[in-house]
Amino acid sequence: DANNTERVQEILNQDLSAVDIAHIIESTPSKRRADIWKFLSESQKGEVISHLSDDLQLHYLTKMSPEQVLEAIQDLDSDDFADVLQQLPETNRIAVLHSMEPEDRREVEELLAYPEDTAGGLMNPEVLTIRANVTLDVVLRYLRRQSDLPDQFDSLYVVNRNDQLVGTLPLHALLLGDPDTTVREVMNSDIEGIPAASRDSDVAKLFANHDWISAPVVDEKGKLLGQITIDDIVDVIREEADHTVMSMAGLDEDEDAFAPVWSSAKGRAVWLGLNLLTAFIAALVILNFEDAIAMITALAVMNPVVASMGGVAGSQTLTLVIRAQATGKINASNYLWLLGREFGVGLINGFLWAIVTAFVCWLLFSNVQLAIVSGIAILANITIAKISGALLPVILEKLKIDPALSGSVILTTVTDAVGFFTLLGLATWYLL
Amino acid sequence: DANNTERVQEILNQDLSAVDIAHIIESTPSKRRADIWKFLSESQKGEVISHLSDDLQLHYLTKMSPEQVLEAIQDLDSDDFADVLQQLPETNRIAVLHSMEPEDRREVEELLAYPEDTAGGLMNPEVLTIRANVTLDVVLRYLRRQSDLPDQFDSLYVVNRNDQLVGTLPLHALLLGDPDTTVREVMNSDIEGIPAASRDSDVAKLFANHDWISAPVVDEKGKLLGQITIDDIVDVIREEADHTVMSMAGLDEDEDAFAPVWSSAKGRAVWLGLNLLTAFIAALVILNFEDAIAMITALAVMNPVVASMGGVAGSQTLTLVIRAQATGKINASNYLWLLGREFGVGLINGFLWAIVTAFVCWLLFSNVQLAIVSGIAILANITIAKISGALLPVILEKLKIDPALSGSVILTTVTDAVGFFTLLGLATWYLL
Repeated sequence: DANNTERVQEILNQDLSAVDIAHIIESTPSKRRADIWKFLSESQKGEVISHLSDDLQLHYLTKMSPEQVLEAIQDLDSDDFADVLQQLPETNRIAVLHSMEPEDRREVEELLAYPEDTAGGLMNPEVLTIRANVTLDVVLRYLRRQSDLPDQFDSLYVVNRNDQLVGTLPLHALLLGDPDTTVREVMNSDIEGIPAASRDSDVAKLFANHDWISAPVVDEKGKLLGQITIDDIVDVIREEADHTVMSMAGLDEDEDAFAPVWSSAKGRAVWLGLNLLTAFIAALVILNFEDAIAMITALAVMNPVVASMGGVAGSQTLTLVIRAQATGKINASNYLWLLGREFGVGLINGFLWAIVTAFVCWLLFSNVQLAIVSGIAILANITIAKISGALLPVILEKLKIDPALSGSVILTTVTDAVGFFTLLGLATWYLL
Repeated sequence: DANNTERVQEILNQDLSAVDIAHIIESTPSKRRADIWKFLSESQKGEVISHLSDDLQLHYLTKMSPEQVLEAIQDLDSDDFADVLQQLPETNRIAVLHSMEPEDRREVEELLAYPEDTAGGLMNPEVLTIRANVTLDVVLRYLRRQSDLPDQFDSLYVVNRNDQLVGTLPLHALLLGDPDTTVREVMNSDIEGIPAASRDSDVAKLFANHDWISAPVVDEKGKLLGQITIDDIVDVIREEADHTVMSMAGLDEDEDAFAPVWSSAKGRAVWLGLNLLTAFIAALVILNFEDAIAMITALAVMNPVVASMGGVAGSQTLTLVIRAQATGKINASNYLWLLGREFGVGLINGFLWAIVTAFVCWLLFSNVQLAIVSGIAILANITIAKISGALLPVILEKLKIDPALSGSVILTTVTDAVGFFTLLGLATWYLL
């Protein structure tokens, strides 16, 4: 209604940045997003789109004509421009590329050749290069002639006649050096370019370890291709950590918190269906012990307790190992030690909680034998859970399956089945 | 042994950076860490300590005398220096402060006055300040006289005679401007300093939204106190995301992956004990329906299936809402919509998996009534789980309890209890 429209316009007139508008759109229920979108100018749309999450980018871009897409995103830096295009289905992408000037198009196509999750996909090809044999004074005059300097630049790149990287000239060296010295005398020459094929997570580690603000990207022959700046790296770090949290709950790391009910329901259904399957697999163990349960119904009470302790014990180890993998802390020389340590931790906690469980079980059912059986089942399940939690992520990684995504489902199936089997198996053997 | 010693020395001689050595120590089983530590020089130790996780910092610092601590960390930037001191128990910290020169000590004490998780705790007080009425040429000559410029500086800060921030002068403006213009003419004056009391997560959002590399910190009167640089912000982002992952498994975000078996066992025990308590609480529901189970043992098979579906459905919503909270996407105007959406998603998935469950249940037990009861229990548990998952984090935050830490334990108790109660309650009422 009119009242609502006025409020939207009021909000958008507050001189909001594209990031703020993107944040507002992401925090708005899907149906009301159109009310905000229609008040944005074409150039605003491009900036806003580049800050939206992947699925929302796709949503808006596929609704626009190639010309509208181009108009919306033409002012973006080339790396952001390529990132946005990468979201489009191939036919739309080709249509947009065809509506571009040949020269711009070539540059973007070169960027699109690199996978999004590599140094090549992160880099911006617009860099300022200089030669080593000129003086700082010449460099300064060259810079002053540039009409359009990059927003974030702390270094100039020094290349030879083959465009190979030979060094970097930090801005403050340029500022503080004698104008008559040559670039070669003050440049930093012990820098190695990042290979364009490097994985983005490895690039992020390099940035974090060296406190870099920007770094050059090179091809196999050392030719300078572009530079990566810290703002892209911050995004990589954020997405990586989000991936672990969201995947462990079976969600996409890019999940739209305010997606409409149907698309959310569809997204969650797969995971729930998979869980139903594994829950039935584990429950089939119980099916084999119906006689025991009919005679000792207390077993049905102890069943979820034993299973749950295994699940929690295992997921602690699973999370710890997945995070250690992600930060590159697990290797052949320390993994066996880790496995042994988790076995030890499992035994200690297994004994401790076995005794407590047995005692509570005895209080509830006044049945010493059932208490002993429950305690042994807890000890076995916690210990096996700890070992499984340490083994699973490493096995899954070897099989090239994402441990964060599938680890917890598989682990819960194991701990449920082992829990049910030890409790009911021992009870059948010892109590009946 | 000698062989081992030689290898350690070989590794450390490879010109490793402090970050690499810290990474190696964190990836080494606790017992063998001493072999690495003893080969480090005193000055290396300080750099390495500043890159270790909090509990390892504490481990090494408490073993050193105040003089050794001081020698190890004296070359650190003041913000890192204060961070390390913050890890120490109060008596050790005071001892170190007393062994410092009065002037250095005052500076550090001022930093220690700010909580670690605020802008004041992140900032480095060493900044270069200039006045607005001088010319760029004067600024350049001033900079050239400085012997020790900060590693990462992209801006100079412009202050008035009361040390209040009036603007920033980006290095490239200094480089490209006419030497005879004054700072006032080219400085960026629409910048506001970050209040020292701002929370670190809010500061991280500002950096991400504005693609900042550094930003000034001010007190209530606008007086410049120091600057925050992007490297500190990268650490904040990493720790925040780690906190969610690790807390949800009941682990400390700073958990040492290679801690010795006893300290690991102790750390995990609390969480397992809490889980045992809540598992028994949920299991007590079953205790009230022993008659039903004795007559229909299939209920013991369906019990964990119903509970597990509720647990997974709820944890999806819980994770989504916790992440949306952390990124500031939840507010009073969209929360009711979100709650309604989750209710809808719960109903849709509830119906879908209720039908599948009922069908499988009928296949297994050829009992139509049991199949209907199981289906209804699944529908109820998934729907209630979705609503609980959306309500819990918001309630916990209002109570100032960390939703990432306690959300999943409470949620599982709810979904287990609701699952058991609906399945067994319906069965008692309808089947017996």
